[in-house]
Amino acid sequence: MRPLVVVGPERAPRQEVEALRGFSAATVHEALGRQGSLGRRLRPLQPGARLTGTALTVLCPPGDNLTVHVAVEQIREGDVLVVTTTSPCRDGYVGELLATSMRARGALGLVTTTGIRDTAAIRALRFPVWCRAVSITGTVKETAGAVNLPVSIGGTVISPGDVIIADDDGVVCVPRARAAEVAEASRQRDERETGTRRALAEGGLGLDVYGMRPLLERLGVTYRGASPGEGPGGGGG
Amino acid sequence: MRPLVVVGPERAPRQEVEALRGFSAATVHEALGRQGSLGRRLRPLQPGARLTGTALTVLCPPGDNLTVHVAVEQIREGDVLVVTTTSPCRDGYVGELLATSMRARGALGLVTTTGIRDTAAIRALRFPVWCRAVSITGTVKETAGAVNLPVSIGGTVISPGDVIIADDDGVVCVPRARAAEVAEASRQRDERETGTRRALAEGGLGLDVYGMRPLLERLGVTYRGASPGEGPGGGGG
Amino acid sequence: MRPLVVVGPERAPRQEVEALRGFSAATVHEALGRQGSLGRRLRPLQPGARLTGTALTVLCPPGDNLTVHVAVEQIREGDVLVVTTTSPCRDGYVGELLATSMRARGALGLVTTTGIRDTAAIRALRFPVWCRAVSITGTVKETAGAVNLPVSIGGTVISPGDVIIADDDGVVCVPRARAAEVAEASRQRDERETGTRRALAEGGLGLDVYGMRPLLERLGVTYRGASPGEGPGGGGG
Amino acid sequence: MRPLVVVGPERAPRQEVEALRGFSAATVHEALGRQGSLGRRLRPLQPGARLTGTALTVLCPPGDNLTVHVAVEQIREGDVLVVTTTSPCRDGYVGELLATSMRARGALGLVTTTGIRDTAAIRALRFPVWCRAVSITGTVKETAGAVNLPVSIGGTVISPGDVIIADDDGVVCVPRARAAEVAEASRQRDERETGTRRALAEGGLGLDVYGMRPLLERLGVTYRGASPGEGPGGGGG
Amino acid sequence: MRPLVVVGPERAPRQEVEALRGFSAATVHEALGRQGSLGRRLRPLQPGARLTGTALTVLCPPGDNLTVHVAVEQIREGDVLVVTTTSPCRDGYVGELLATSMRARGALGLVTTTGIRDTAAIRALRFPVWCRAVSITGTVKETAGAVNLPVSIGGTVISPGDVIIADDDGVVCVPRARAAEVAEASRQRDERETGTRRALAEGGLGLDVYGMRPLLERLGVTYRGASPGEGPGGGGG
Amino acid sequence: MRPLVVVGPERAPRQEVEALRGFSAATVHEALGRQGSLGRRLRPLQPGARLTGTALTVLCPPGDNLTVHVAVEQIREGDVLVVTTTSPCRDGYVGELLATSMRARGALGLVTTTGIRDTAAIRALRFPVWCRAVSITGTVKETAGAVNLPVSIGGTVISPGDVIIADDDGVVCVPRARAAEVAEASRQRDERETGTRRALAEGGLGLDVYGMRPLLERLGVTYRGASPGEGPGGGGG
Repeated sequence: MRPLVVVGPERAPRQEVEALRGFSAATVHEALGRQGSLGRRLRPLQPGARLTGTALTVLCPPGDNLTVHVAVEQIREGDVLVVTTTSPCRDGYVGELLATSMRARGALGLVTTTGIRDTAAIRALRFPVWCRAVSITGTVKETAGAVNLPVSIGGTVISPGDVIIADDDGVVCVPRARAAEVAEASRQRDERETGTRRALAEGGLGLDVYGMRPLLERLGVTYRGASPGEGPGGGGG
Repeated sequence: MRPLVVVGPERAPRQEVEALRGFSAATVHEALGRQGSLGRRLRPLQPGARLTGTALTVLCPPGDNLTVHVAVEQIREGDVLVVTTTSPCRDGYVGELLATSMRARGALGLVTTTGIRDTAAIRALRFPVWCRAVSITGTVKETAGAVNLPVSIGGTVISPGDVIIADDDGVVCVPRARAAEVAEASRQRDERETGTRRALAEGGLGLDVYGMRPLLERLGVTYRGASPGEGPGGGGG
Repeated sequence: MRPLVVVGPERAPRQEVEALRGFSAATVHEALGRQGSLGRRLRPLQPGARLTGTALTVLCPPGDNLTVHVAVEQIREGDVLVVTTTSPCRDGYVGELLATSMRARGALGLVTTTGIRDTAAIRALRFPVWCRAVSITGTVKETAGAVNLPVSIGGTVISPGDVIIADDDGVVCVPRARAAEVAEASRQRDERETGTRRALAEGGLGLDVYGMRPLLERLGVTYRGASPGEGPGGGGG
Repeated sequence: MRPLVVVGPERAPRQEVEALRGFSAATVHEALGRQGSLGRRLRPLQPGARLTGTALTVLCPPGDNLTVHVAVEQIREGDVLVVTTTSPCRDGYVGELLATSMRARGALGLVTTTGIRDTAAIRALRFPVWCRAVSITGTVKETAGAVNLPVSIGGTVISPGDVIIADDDGVVCVPRARAAEVAEASRQRDERETGTRRALAEGGLGLDVYGMRPLLERLGVTYRGASPGEGPGGGGG
Repeated sequence: MRPLVVVGPERAPRQEVEALRGFSAATVHEALGRQGSLGRRLRPLQPGARLTGTALTVLCPPGDNLTVHVAVEQIREGDVLVVTTTSPCRDGYVGELLATSMRARGALGLVTTTGIRDTAAIRALRFPVWCRAVSITGTVKETAGAVNLPVSIGGTVISPGDVIIADDDGVVCVPRARAAEVAEASRQRDERETGTRRALAEGGLGLDVYGMRPLLERLGVTYRGASPGEGPGGGGG
Repeated sequence: MRPLVVVGPERAPRQEVEALRGFSAATVHEALGRQGSLGRRLRPLQPGARLTGTALTVLCPPGDNLTVHVAVEQIREGDVLVVTTTSPCRDGYVGELLATSMRARGALGLVTTTGIRDTAAIRALRFPVWCRAVSITGTVKETAGAVNLPVSIGGTVISPGDVIIADDDGVVCVPRARAAEVAEASRQRDERETGTRRALAEGGLGLDVYGMRPLLERLGVTYRGASPGEGPGGGGG
């Protein structure tokens, strides 16, 4: 990996980012055709935090956060830093000072596959973070990686300028070119769910609301009364 | 696995369930002779949540929550859904809509070895959940499993109608036929602990309160003053 | 392992412990030359809890907490129990009663590589705990280990009397003989950071504040405009 | 758990065990309706080893193998020891001496969720073992568990006298009462596969051999030529 | 994910694939600028197996291998099947029959993030496989995924037609368009290493052969004699 | 961590190392009082490999193997390199060239908590390795760590000059000062086991050979005939 910084990549247009704001990560994921999740291992530092912004991608060597410092200079208002490493590393790449700096430069938050530290101070700053770990272990600043090249997290490729939606459920990435389309699909999905929610809250059954009874019949689902002596199933526990 | 729904299995009697209510999962586990835990990987979504109800068991294929929808129709007031899969899967099997439906049908809560999503909304609903993961990734509704057959989680078999006790410490299952006996044993245990707690809070030593000094002697426990140069032990970290 | 209790090991002097109080675990870790962390797997039971005290070390067999009871008798005011096992075990070694007893005897808190239980009650007691797991599964009291011998957690050796600093970020151990020196180094580090924090909060760049631009040049970091078609990097997700 | 040894449980009849011999664990698992696997974490110590015998179940406390010694006395010719613990423990429960003893008493092999040690010697003995780990760490002999009570491994309950089939793919348990039926279903499955194997080896397609094309049509599977620019899917890596 | 099969994607030219054959996965990874690894969790089923071929990518739902059957029809001579799932699943997606079919259709091997089964038979077939797990648990054939769309494994995106190099060390992917260039770089790297290997085998030091002594000086590496009493470092164990 | 190389630390005397040679890692571990294991995660690259030598310790930053090159210069005939990192890293720190160099300088083998690569070549070299992973991902050579300071692996502290015993079961460290004593204890243990092995091979029971029946009585172990309907125990699977 040669050390490289891509300057000023195109971001998703402001109004398309705004059109996505307010939808949950799960809704957007569905609207994307069940794609775009960064995986269930990225957890929010602050329960209840929410975020919609444009990706500024950072690829670091393990144990070295020099490239995060390089990336801070590239922040534009509304960006979210998306940090990963060339091999798995859960050390504390970002602490209070870097978080202070990111916020001062206009970043909305941080998504990282590394660990972070100074978590009490970062919570006090109200700078939202999604991360893999909390770790006291710091990093060196000796080797440079890449800023604003595509990175891959949880099977999803994040390109600079893509839209990041994060909440209590995790993090989703919407490709820049699809932001408007996905915002519209999210809106439609939310609308549909409003009616369903009401029907279910009143005691309606999903089997009826979603029309699943013919499927059960085709699958040969059998109903019978209780009888003793059946062994357990499972293995997914 | 042929798709099967057992209708109306016998539940533990209401008054026996009530007799167990109020005891902690740890107390009941001890009263059961140190059995019945569903393992330390099931964690509460809402700190402080507590639950005592009758098990409605659900066994799903990986990545498919059709059987959860089937199970909702089988809920009776006071049930707890206990969901697992035929092979490990942490996808988001239950979201806001299913949780809304479960509560509307009378379920007290959900225990699942899968992931869940829409966690902010589920917290707002105050519908208590114990789960293995939070995951944005949804499931399909194509293949059916089994409702109200015994399932196995964390080395414990849960049969439909068994009593589920869940709190911050995790989840315990009391076999239906032993509910009354275990409630009584839990009551006795709690009673005994009241005295012990007072003695210890006043500075009494467990060594004396529990009468363990003869055991220490038999084991040959040696007391000596400090001296330098001993190497460390461990390996459990 | 022969069962052994070392009585009255030398503790770090009270005033040196006090000199360390108030510094975060991450700061102390840096002041120690990036050493002393007990690893990122020890997590606080109570967010926001903080602790500075002297180590009382406990080494138990797996599944057996007899030695913790033995250790309680050795507590002196200001001690922190540091518990580990001879092979990994996440069972619930400490519950409400033991926590009550530890506090009544003057302990400031508990650090353990095992699980704990009665977590709601322990939270209510405001007795701070750092642990690996929460587990309903209890232990027996049949086999004895060692009290106040050095133990090893997360690659760090903790000797009795060392200073333990724990907060939301994790746990750090300062060797007894270095407490004064590390307190002073922590103070200097905190002082330096105050200025840096202000500069960064006002929008200054770490690249300038830390003088890293010459390093970037030496490393050959290249800046260029965006162009399409680059593949993703990563693998650390 | 009160210490208990069940003496002389009924084993699956010799001829039914023999009827199952020779079928692979995967075939038997399918013939059981995709049930009975002890999970993918039990791995063979000796590649190529195969085993069909009756289960002698052993439940131990963590870090204590006393109950394995107790179980050896209960071995009958053709038994397989199935060992697990009340909470997870990967210590070395069985070494060369115990393996020597098991073989001398007529056991065909060992299946254990613990670790084992003296692996070079056990390989030299040609005593087949399936286990979770190899570990130098030994155990104590202080606390007793249970012999010949049902145990649960990987979501499957193994009762004493059930038939254990193990090979390179893992371990499967056939309930005693179903041995004859499952042997016959395995035979039929093997027979069917012979024809399929030949068809596929000659270049036939599963889509045709299994008649899956109508399903593809119903699912709306679309075929098209290559075009550039599609993003990656995944997340299962 | 809509079910889709891309037919006849462009493969890396035969002669460029041949130019890469014979280089180890580690060498090619270095020649690619330390990119392209599919991660350390994909392990070879058969020690010593080696493979160089063109990727045929397959994306399946969890617990469902229908799409693998669909993919077999798309195999061209020299292809390697690269299989992953939309969420993590280690079930046995491929057994003896599918492996027989893949080989009969001209595939050189299989790389999969899932589990496989019938491993003894697959070893006997000498059909090379790299996988995440061995699992008796089979899959259903109910839901379709995608064939020959890009997939992401271990942070690396694999597009159909890319070159896959696999050996005992793991699996590397070379983008189709860079095959020739990377083959040449691999050749040069191998050549350089021949001289280095000889120097080192004769007792030369890497410090001299690679000219690292000035770097040590710049880093301030200090040499001194032994003295007692230093504490241990680590945490990476 | 300041970069430091300790030159010429005292090694365990040659004849004491020789006195330990031939004993298995498990035997030595027992002779040490069940201490000294480096944990069950270090696995041999070459089944059947055995090793007894003196530790040359190496502590590296994550992702950087410069310090391993530095350590090679410090090898003396009969040394074993013991490599770990300041935070967990499974990258490929050692490949064919470094292994060639280590052997040429007189090292007997390598024990590392990192990954290795070029495994086929290293097997061909017959240079024995115990490691945590195999990984294609290489490291940089930018930052220096420490050579011949104590390191901690799996809860055991290894000081330079200690004796390392490694075989199929794993790795054990004998403190330099205890080598002679432990060799003698190992010899006695082996001797005792010879008689026991014979008794057990002839069908004797451990219960009698070890005299455990009084213990069973004291523990209240109950024997009874089989009866139906008992639930399973477990949770250790």
